[in-house]
Amino acid sequence: MATQANSVPHPILVEVDPFLPADQQKGLHNRWHPDIPAYASVKPGQVFKVQCVDWTGAQIGNNDFSDDIKNIDLTKIHNLSGPIAVEGAEPGDCLVVDILDVTPFEKMPWGYTGIFELENGGGLFAREFNSKAAKAIWDFKGIYATSRHIPGVRFAGVSHPGLIGTAPSAELLATWNERERGLIAQDPSAVPALAFAPEIKGAYIGQDLDPAVEKKIKSEGARTIPGREHGGNCDIKNLSRGSRCYFPVFIGGANLSVGDLHFSQGDGEMSFCGAIEMAGIITLSTSIIKGGVEKFALKQPIFLPSPVDPMYSAKLIFEGISVDYHGDGKQYNMDATVAYKQAALNTIAYLMKIGYTREQAYLLLSAAPVESHVGAVVDSPNACVTLALPLGIFEHDILPKEEGLKKLDFGQCAIRSDGVV
Amino acid sequence: MATQANSVPHPILVEVDPFLPADQQKGLHNRWHPDIPAYASVKPGQVFKVQCVDWTGAQIGNNDFSDDIKNIDLTKIHNLSGPIAVEGAEPGDCLVVDILDVTPFEKMPWGYTGIFELENGGGLFAREFNSKAAKAIWDFKGIYATSRHIPGVRFAGVSHPGLIGTAPSAELLATWNERERGLIAQDPSAVPALAFAPEIKGAYIGQDLDPAVEKKIKSEGARTIPGREHGGNCDIKNLSRGSRCYFPVFIGGANLSVGDLHFSQGDGEMSFCGAIEMAGIITLSTSIIKGGVEKFALKQPIFLPSPVDPMYSAKLIFEGISVDYHGDGKQYNMDATVAYKQAALNTIAYLMKIGYTREQAYLLLSAAPVESHVGAVVDSPNACVTLALPLGIFEHDILPKEEGLKKLDFGQCAIRSDGVV
Amino acid sequence: MATQANSVPHPILVEVDPFLPADQQKGLHNRWHPDIPAYASVKPGQVFKVQCVDWTGAQIGNNDFSDDIKNIDLTKIHNLSGPIAVEGAEPGDCLVVDILDVTPFEKMPWGYTGIFELENGGGLFAREFNSKAAKAIWDFKGIYATSRHIPGVRFAGVSHPGLIGTAPSAELLATWNERERGLIAQDPSAVPALAFAPEIKGAYIGQDLDPAVEKKIKSEGARTIPGREHGGNCDIKNLSRGSRCYFPVFIGGANLSVGDLHFSQGDGEMSFCGAIEMAGIITLSTSIIKGGVEKFALKQPIFLPSPVDPMYSAKLIFEGISVDYHGDGKQYNMDATVAYKQAALNTIAYLMKIGYTREQAYLLLSAAPVESHVGAVVDSPNACVTLALPLGIFEHDILPKEEGLKKLDFGQCAIRSDGVV
Amino acid sequence: MATQANSVPHPILVEVDPFLPADQQKGLHNRWHPDIPAYASVKPGQVFKVQCVDWTGAQIGNNDFSDDIKNIDLTKIHNLSGPIAVEGAEPGDCLVVDILDVTPFEKMPWGYTGIFELENGGGLFAREFNSKAAKAIWDFKGIYATSRHIPGVRFAGVSHPGLIGTAPSAELLATWNERERGLIAQDPSAVPALAFAPEIKGAYIGQDLDPAVEKKIKSEGARTIPGREHGGNCDIKNLSRGSRCYFPVFIGGANLSVGDLHFSQGDGEMSFCGAIEMAGIITLSTSIIKGGVEKFALKQPIFLPSPVDPMYSAKLIFEGISVDYHGDGKQYNMDATVAYKQAALNTIAYLMKIGYTREQAYLLLSAAPVESHVGAVVDSPNACVTLALPLGIFEHDILPKEEGLKKLDFGQCAIRSDGVV
Repeated sequence: MATQANSVPHPILVEVDPFLPADQQKGLHNRWHPDIPAYASVKPGQVFKVQCVDWTGAQIGNNDFSDDIKNIDLTKIHNLSGPIAVEGAEPGDCLVVDILDVTPFEKMPWGYTGIFELENGGGLFAREFNSKAAKAIWDFKGIYATSRHIPGVRFAGVSHPGLIGTAPSAELLATWNERERGLIAQDPSAVPALAFAPEIKGAYIGQDLDPAVEKKIKSEGARTIPGREHGGNCDIKNLSRGSRCYFPVFIGGANLSVGDLHFSQGDGEMSFCGAIEMAGIITLSTSIIKGGVEKFALKQPIFLPSPVDPMYSAKLIFEGISVDYHGDGKQYNMDATVAYKQAALNTIAYLMKIGYTREQAYLLLSAAPVESHVGAVVDSPNACVTLALPLGIFEHDILPKEEGLKKLDFGQCAIRSDGVV
Repeated sequence: MATQANSVPHPILVEVDPFLPADQQKGLHNRWHPDIPAYASVKPGQVFKVQCVDWTGAQIGNNDFSDDIKNIDLTKIHNLSGPIAVEGAEPGDCLVVDILDVTPFEKMPWGYTGIFELENGGGLFAREFNSKAAKAIWDFKGIYATSRHIPGVRFAGVSHPGLIGTAPSAELLATWNERERGLIAQDPSAVPALAFAPEIKGAYIGQDLDPAVEKKIKSEGARTIPGREHGGNCDIKNLSRGSRCYFPVFIGGANLSVGDLHFSQGDGEMSFCGAIEMAGIITLSTSIIKGGVEKFALKQPIFLPSPVDPMYSAKLIFEGISVDYHGDGKQYNMDATVAYKQAALNTIAYLMKIGYTREQAYLLLSAAPVESHVGAVVDSPNACVTLALPLGIFEHDILPKEEGLKKLDFGQCAIRSDGVV
Repeated sequence: MATQANSVPHPILVEVDPFLPADQQKGLHNRWHPDIPAYASVKPGQVFKVQCVDWTGAQIGNNDFSDDIKNIDLTKIHNLSGPIAVEGAEPGDCLVVDILDVTPFEKMPWGYTGIFELENGGGLFAREFNSKAAKAIWDFKGIYATSRHIPGVRFAGVSHPGLIGTAPSAELLATWNERERGLIAQDPSAVPALAFAPEIKGAYIGQDLDPAVEKKIKSEGARTIPGREHGGNCDIKNLSRGSRCYFPVFIGGANLSVGDLHFSQGDGEMSFCGAIEMAGIITLSTSIIKGGVEKFALKQPIFLPSPVDPMYSAKLIFEGISVDYHGDGKQYNMDATVAYKQAALNTIAYLMKIGYTREQAYLLLSAAPVESHVGAVVDSPNACVTLALPLGIFEHDILPKEEGLKKLDFGQCAIRSDGVV
Repeated sequence: MATQANSVPHPILVEVDPFLPADQQKGLHNRWHPDIPAYASVKPGQVFKVQCVDWTGAQIGNNDFSDDIKNIDLTKIHNLSGPIAVEGAEPGDCLVVDILDVTPFEKMPWGYTGIFELENGGGLFAREFNSKAAKAIWDFKGIYATSRHIPGVRFAGVSHPGLIGTAPSAELLATWNERERGLIAQDPSAVPALAFAPEIKGAYIGQDLDPAVEKKIKSEGARTIPGREHGGNCDIKNLSRGSRCYFPVFIGGANLSVGDLHFSQGDGEMSFCGAIEMAGIITLSTSIIKGGVEKFALKQPIFLPSPVDPMYSAKLIFEGISVDYHGDGKQYNMDATVAYKQAALNTIAYLMKIGYTREQAYLLLSAAPVESHVGAVVDSPNACVTLALPLGIFEHDILPKEEGLKKLDFGQCAIRSDGVV
């Protein structure tokens, strides 16, 4: 038996200052590319920690105006920590990653949720709402979050990395770039954009690199916005601390990167910057299953969820179908995204009845542990999707009552200093 | 205090024989129309029962071939029991419906799940799989279902009505017909059809009606296939026994109809006839909230889920994004339906690794209590959807292991007597 | 593949009329003895049903006075259905019993909870409260129970057999009788009695027996009141429909008997007749594990709980320690029973603050799905036990509030016709 | 709106070094007495942190022998942090305490579970097992614990303070001392002792006090071992991070003290030092409800449990009754403690069948999130108690199987260096 070996704190492989701009720090990067060298490496079985800045790299402040959201530079996101190479991992293997914990920094017990301008980032209802920048600051009180910008709620976080993935091979990267460029080509001037091509502006690799390599990475590197076959920005709230995730490996060492930590998030992450975004620390360990891609038919990660997600058994559930009955009444064909949107708009309408502004409701549904299930996607032409509002997060009883709903005054979230909403 | 009043069994408002064709029975109908008279009426607060045939009206048998699925007449579905008028309900009210229980008939302790032919019904993967008719018969053993056609699994039912809704007003009905006809017009010859227009053939109203009224109903009545603003065929597995549902009321009496009972279903109801379809008995009670549509901003039903759904906390979760990487690699734009399909295909591939045929896997995911969450629908261009396989339903350990997955022989589900799969 | 075999309804091995006295019916018995012949037998794997009268054998009525409770004949209880022999079971085997379902009779959608007189049955607080007979009638509305005698609550049942067990061997029976007689001898005149010796009066074996055998059974047969090594009257609420239980086998055929069905029960079954007692139907299947007693070190049954018990995640939890601070202040030594009682008395005091009478509170805690955990039994001298009240069963918000608790008028439960409480 | 106010980290009211002896540190105390001055004070609403040494004050090391357990000085326990006065709290008020988080120290990612010698501390089975010192060291890997001394298990912690309570009034203290002395007097030489009288030896108050006051506190101060009316050492696993607890206030300021942090614990805390004992940090906030003791009939704390306790829905449940069938066969009268012990012994026997030693099994049941419910305490003479083993914590499948249980070799836990077990 080893003696005292475990008294040693877990090593921190990437250290950051959450209050400094990301592009002044080492061990961060914001593009996917196989040529980004491993910033650190670990042996399978080792427990280690990785510190992460928030996804914007300290562009957003704990204050009461949303101008920082309005003016954000989105070419710089997401700031990821890593890559971390795992010794022995080879293409075709499965990298098993235990997400052992996700916590905020002691010195930064707060996070934020934002509504982005239609012209700069957008969000699910950017067009419907003609979105102007707005935000809510959330205070972390142990396992709970509350917000001075959205009074009347308190909930336990289901903390998770919004973004975690292995590095793509050159071949996979080429596939991504090709298919996404194809989409963009369908409507290059769309607002918001249909997809995001590689972009040298804002690209950052926080390591000392050969200039030619750096240029190659920046000009070819895939943007971090969508999730893809390697994981990436999947924003799955239940891939939370305590989960075990099985990633396909595409290059030697696997080169795992992680960031975009969320204190909490609702299914769908509605407002785009919809989670409670935070800087923080993630604790990980890994193992390797040789040939796991073939063994498990892995085309994308699979995972075992955590035993410790928040349990709010009492819920009010809203339905939506693939008819835009909140808008122009258009009939879509089995479109689950449209159905999700209707369910969300139904929920927002309900929250407005109890006194929240549309912006507050939109932010709340993005950040709180709401659950959205696909009901059915076979009953032509209407897909059906549900959104479940956990009742236990509200300080007041919000159940439908014979006498109607009690409308309270919850003020407003943080908006632009020019007052435009 | 009332004495002994409760010793009286709950009244049965619609009685049916589950083994007889639906169109030989009273109190059933298979179209939505405001002029269908109430078959029975109740006072608010009354607990009552409604018997239901299976959605096909006894077209499917407990046998080991799928020819009945192949040859099914879909113009005849869904066979609904009712309408039940609730005294005092008026347009604009909210009809509160307690789904108190859903059980099979004592004499019919079995149900089925079907894969329909591409040309007759289809299903989520009808085109991808070029589906041929197949089915699984499920035996009900108390709260559990097992199948001789899909050995190795046993699960508790989350029993629910696939279809329950209030009658539309004439105006709402016209809206439905118009928008769905518009969709059909985009590709009238699509296979499977994009939507289903009113269809006299197969239409059935199991009441003695004035011929002119009957003709009007049959020629105008909306098909029952999609869910709509009144509820209808939403196929939400969690709208199960023990739920309380709030429906908008569109005509006097509300005229509630119900049918398409499911012993169990997975989120998405993948194979179209994806639930465990059964005949059975639903126990209901109602109340009315005057003006509830306005009070709760109701554009579609909302509900409180049951406290007694099956709990399988250990799960294996599959991810999918809106890129058809199982097919032609096409990049879609934030399409949750495509993402759901990839997650499902990933799960089917995994189940085939442990020995199920593709048809068995497809049927199993449709019928078992799998959960599908919308992960995120804001990370352009990839929506992310997850599908969670409950591990506790399997007799064997199916977790990813270092040594790979153990492949067993589970035979095959029921297929066509000509052997075509 | 077998064809159509499963279309046959599950056979009913014991049929009873829940409104007739138990001692006029076949297939019932109320003592444990190895010589009671099997009333029916089954093969392993067979699904079957057993009908059960309520534990008293129709002594209690659906009315608004508790005189029937006061005058009950307890020598006649519990009325068990069976024994059912399982082919091939031998001493030392493990009999695996799947409790597939537990439902009330269609024609008897009600049950009851009773407080028994100190002198006739008693209950946990019989002495503290100097209990007089009282009761609540519960109406079954699908999966829910409500009571006109305890307004303001509604809860889903965790339906289970209060009593299920295999027949003892002659040797085991002798052990039981000896040790219980020893306890009685410590204070033969205790009220309530410390234990119950074999008693010919009231004993009933509903089969045609040789008179000598019948006499032997009645004079030696163990009373059914306590749980023992074979299972028996354990009154474990979580041994509910959906559970799989592993019983030790003591005689050939195992001879399983079952009864005392409960629609619901709280942990502890406080008031003795504390569950919602009902007549009903239990669906079972069995299998045999040869030599299971040795394989699993079985000294008493073990079981896998059901996946479908009611989930009420929001709870208010009361603590209790082994000091009788509600009574004379006596200090006990690590006594979990005393601690349970204090937790229960704390809960009753709280419920009285919101308007329930002591009798209503006592009945409610007995019948509703309250959970009692052993906190710690090692901190000398105080054991600590908790009692958790599910908040979701109350129509009103009962949380502790700054302004105190709102006291409503809930009337009173059914009491004696002479008005004595 | 306040700006930036929340950027400030939560203040730490008590700071300790977990590796230093407790009696060399400020802000710690190990007796209950109203005259212990508040070490710090807070306003209601303030979020604050309190650091805690482990309950023994660094007497136990991360090593592979149990000699430290054998030789422990128990007069020095429990080392509590505080008292913390809450401004405005008065006798008769209710102090609402939010337990916002409980975490280990970054630099001390381990804890321990111990079996104490019969002669020095004991435990539930000290006499039955004639216990010799043994222990297991647990490594904290994020939310999980594993042990090199008990291989084959991994579980998420339900972290909580074993001990938290308000200061007693002089009157309440006198009551405690009197009733516990009365118990001791029944058998002063009992081993283990029936209770623990005030004891000057080992008493420690980590503040600069007037010598007379200090002497009074040490000679009168109640020992911290049992839970009492103020809370105290209740060792309730579900009073965990995320809980809201309502304490009665007995003196001005309430004077809350806390310590004995547990990373995890099973219901019952079987082996006395049965939890995973750790040093760490607890995050708290408070509020006051004036007159809350009367408003809520508070004789002991009540609490709302956390929404984030670990969920392991699959369990194997063991029963126990109040007959010592593992020992001399003695029949007890409705004794839930005896029933708990039988359930525990049944579980230990089962765990030994799969390869754990008795000591490992005893430690595991103490430390893992096992649940013990009071089944029924009314079926004379046998109380029934259950113990539920979560299956998801085991790396191997431990379900009862037809072929019996697979026995593995898990080595042994840490034992005395002289090898005596």
